[in-house]
Amino acid sequence: MQSDDACPLAEPPTVRRALVTGGAGFIGSNLVDRLLAQGCQVTAYDNLSTGQRSFLDGALAHPAFRLVEGDLLDLPTLTEAVDGHDFVFHLAANADVRHGTEHPSRDVEQNILATHNVLEAMRLGGVRRIAFSSTGSIYGEPSVFPTPEDAPFPIQTSLYGASKLAAEGLIQAYAEGFGFQGFIFRFVSVLGERYTHGHVFDFYKQLLTDPCRLFVLGNGKQRKSYMYVQDCIDAILLAIGTLADKVVILNLGNDGYAEVNESIGWITAYLGLAPTLEYGGGERGWIGDSPFIFLDTTRARAVGWQPKLTIRQAVERTVQYLQEHRWLLEQR
Amino acid sequence: MQSDDACPLAEPPTVRRALVTGGAGFIGSNLVDRLLAQGCQVTAYDNLSTGQRSFLDGALAHPAFRLVEGDLLDLPTLTEAVDGHDFVFHLAANADVRHGTEHPSRDVEQNILATHNVLEAMRLGGVRRIAFSSTGSIYGEPSVFPTPEDAPFPIQTSLYGASKLAAEGLIQAYAEGFGFQGFIFRFVSVLGERYTHGHVFDFYKQLLTDPCRLFVLGNGKQRKSYMYVQDCIDAILLAIGTLADKVVILNLGNDGYAEVNESIGWITAYLGLAPTLEYGGGERGWIGDSPFIFLDTTRARAVGWQPKLTIRQAVERTVQYLQEHRWLLEQR
Repeated sequence: MQSDDACPLAEPPTVRRALVTGGAGFIGSNLVDRLLAQGCQVTAYDNLSTGQRSFLDGALAHPAFRLVEGDLLDLPTLTEAVDGHDFVFHLAANADVRHGTEHPSRDVEQNILATHNVLEAMRLGGVRRIAFSSTGSIYGEPSVFPTPEDAPFPIQTSLYGASKLAAEGLIQAYAEGFGFQGFIFRFVSVLGERYTHGHVFDFYKQLLTDPCRLFVLGNGKQRKSYMYVQDCIDAILLAIGTLADKVVILNLGNDGYAEVNESIGWITAYLGLAPTLEYGGGERGWIGDSPFIFLDTTRARAVGWQPKLTIRQAVERTVQYLQEHRWLLEQR
Repeated sequence: MQSDDACPLAEPPTVRRALVTGGAGFIGSNLVDRLLAQGCQVTAYDNLSTGQRSFLDGALAHPAFRLVEGDLLDLPTLTEAVDGHDFVFHLAANADVRHGTEHPSRDVEQNILATHNVLEAMRLGGVRRIAFSSTGSIYGEPSVFPTPEDAPFPIQTSLYGASKLAAEGLIQAYAEGFGFQGFIFRFVSVLGERYTHGHVFDFYKQLLTDPCRLFVLGNGKQRKSYMYVQDCIDAILLAIGTLADKVVILNLGNDGYAEVNESIGWITAYLGLAPTLEYGGGERGWIGDSPFIFLDTTRARAVGWQPKLTIRQAVERTVQYLQEHRWLLEQR
């Protein structure tokens, strides 16, 4: 899509044997199920630090599935696991944007070094196609909304964003240097089944403890976009089955955005609650929080992708899921 | 310059005690001499892997100078060395753009992890001002010439560029998260006294061996910009003494650019030679080589900076320096 050498008409090869890093996580385990349903052989690679083995209950019963418990910083184990696959979905990451400054090496290790290890394992095993879960956070605090993929060169405002940017750059360099094909997906926040962290999680957990009171980080006016996990996976599978360019960069998000206050309204209405709201104050929920995230998804739409759930529907489905899986709230 | 919180009128604090990583290198040792001449206390931190102790002969005779032989990957030694300074010039790097694909971990270690260690050492020691030698290579193969700092979000084409991009992002995240002030300078290729690698070095070395024949990577039509090392240092010192923004990003380069063939003409004319030229062919000298680098330096000009040497003068001065320091050609 961006490169001169691209041949957009060439048929991209089919994925037959996929490895999913973070395959026991929220998006990863949903992707594993979809790939198995498509008839792929699937290996999940996960250290189960935040992933849940139970998310793979269905997959583990499938003969085409294998779980490798391993850490991405363990290159020999990773290299052995990657060998023999034809596609790597690299979804494992430290996704804790909010507490980045409390442990300033974690993003470097788990997002930058881990991605480099994935690329090295692929290079050593002759695997050359990778999809990567990047983030709208790499646009920092953009000046253009909705923000397109070729927005003005951004300035990073969080260790999380900086580490994802670094990983993107390494994937691009491997595409140029070693003949890889790299799919980089810049997500907004994802919601839906197996969701385990983020504002819906925090709010629902607070309301379980005290239904009359809700503490909100920032002033509640932060505007964010959200997307349903199956919509996210639709886009990934469509893009890798359609685009043959050396480097593909796609924003993935919903048409609009919602104020945190709007989202609170949907959550409390769904639960039939009317808590008193208390605000931490300030435009940002935490250091490096971007007060407005809204991505231009024209490129993804051009491939024929269309999200099926609105932000409100995605929020409500997430609350419903958490209601039905309260044990998740006790995990952290 | 970019941030909302910037106060361009505030007086930036003076540099009194500076640490220069890569202080025994080409640009680093020239910077050490300039800082000492300005009356600063200066520590050079260098592992002498490519730096030359003899570049510091003058500095070592100065009472305000100290050389610490250490590696940036050795965080305890680095942290001890950084402590007590008020400014870090982080110039140490793997600057070998051309052979990046031959050792795909080197840029990750020496440029990304090393920069993270510098930031951590600074954070631990309460040092909060940093200048960083980035590169025009992070623009990949840009679509806009001359290329401004806020060019469309680039795609990386080399491990070197990707690693410098990663380092920039980490510096920006530390500025936001830990109250650092980060100066990021995106250089074109630098020439002048103590120059030890690049096309002038390669061509001069070839011509010493065989004055009748010169092998040129690519088709010789690559267009590049170059800058004289003292001009580069002028810009750095001017910017850090003038700009008070949280994150300052400045392109540094000359007004124009030169074809490799032009540069060959200047070198051979200077030496009085007329070698037969042989070309490797192709638009790029190596994988990840950008066939056209020409940076927009409007921002740096706005601070009052003006390069004093033309590209031709910088090339000729470099040839003269190599003639007078032939021992350097035997180092590698």
